[in-house]
Amino acid sequence: MTNAAPKLAPMLSVRRGKQAVEFYKTAFGAKELFLIESPDGNVVAQLGVGESEFWVADESPENLNFSPESMGGSTTRMVLVVENPDAAFQTAIAAGAKEILPVEDKEYGWRVGRVVDPYGHHWEIGKPL
Amino acid sequence: MTNAAPKLAPMLSVRRGKQAVEFYKTAFGAKELFLIESPDGNVVAQLGVGESEFWVADESPENLNFSPESMGGSTTRMVLVVENPDAAFQTAIAAGAKEILPVEDKEYGWRVGRVVDPYGHHWEIGKPL
Repeated sequence: MTNAAPKLAPMLSVRRGKQAVEFYKTAFGAKELFLIESPDGNVVAQLGVGESEFWVADESPENLNFSPESMGGSTTRMVLVVENPDAAFQTAIAAGAKEILPVEDKEYGWRVGRVVDPYGHHWEIGKPL
Repeated sequence: MTNAAPKLAPMLSVRRGKQAVEFYKTAFGAKELFLIESPDGNVVAQLGVGESEFWVADESPENLNFSPESMGGSTTRMVLVVENPDAAFQTAIAAGAKEILPVEDKEYGWRVGRVVDPYGHHWEIGKPL
């Protein structure tokens, strides 16, 4: 076996995890790679978006995993780089995300907008110009 | 230009961003790909770890970017997949991360441990078995 390079994927803590997985599929074209559901209906899911992966899991404050809804904000935002930020932004809004900042050319050389999803996570959708 | 696949990278909100960047280099072998520092000393940095990327930025509550120190917890944890979880875990601890869960074989088929970094972000360091 060759030495694999390290790989990083964020795991988003949410309420209503099962719904959230469906939202991320619709909003960002994510594909479900893995999903495990516990008897109480909580899920841990691994999703793929393009060449990247992320995880979604129901919060468990007893394990120090807090949803943005519990905290009243989020400590990490997702930067999603796509070929067509305007189209991807509109798809996310149509799926139920809310606009925080519209898609615009920024002085730092990106075309980017920002949404918050129904579970409280923030997404910057854009690309370097 | 061909259609590039979407790419996702988390952006961690922190206090003491400049120090945090140095910590992530030491703790996880991250490479600095980009760093911009504003006159007030705040930074936005893009870091590479293996085949993945993440961003680190000083918090700005006025822009809804909150550090775990401000929130008293974090809403996203980082899953870092490495060839040798035990060694990577020890490197992170030596750099100043604190153990939350030791590296162990889990019934769900991973060898994984968990640390919290000095800026309040949680990292699961492991690999599928």
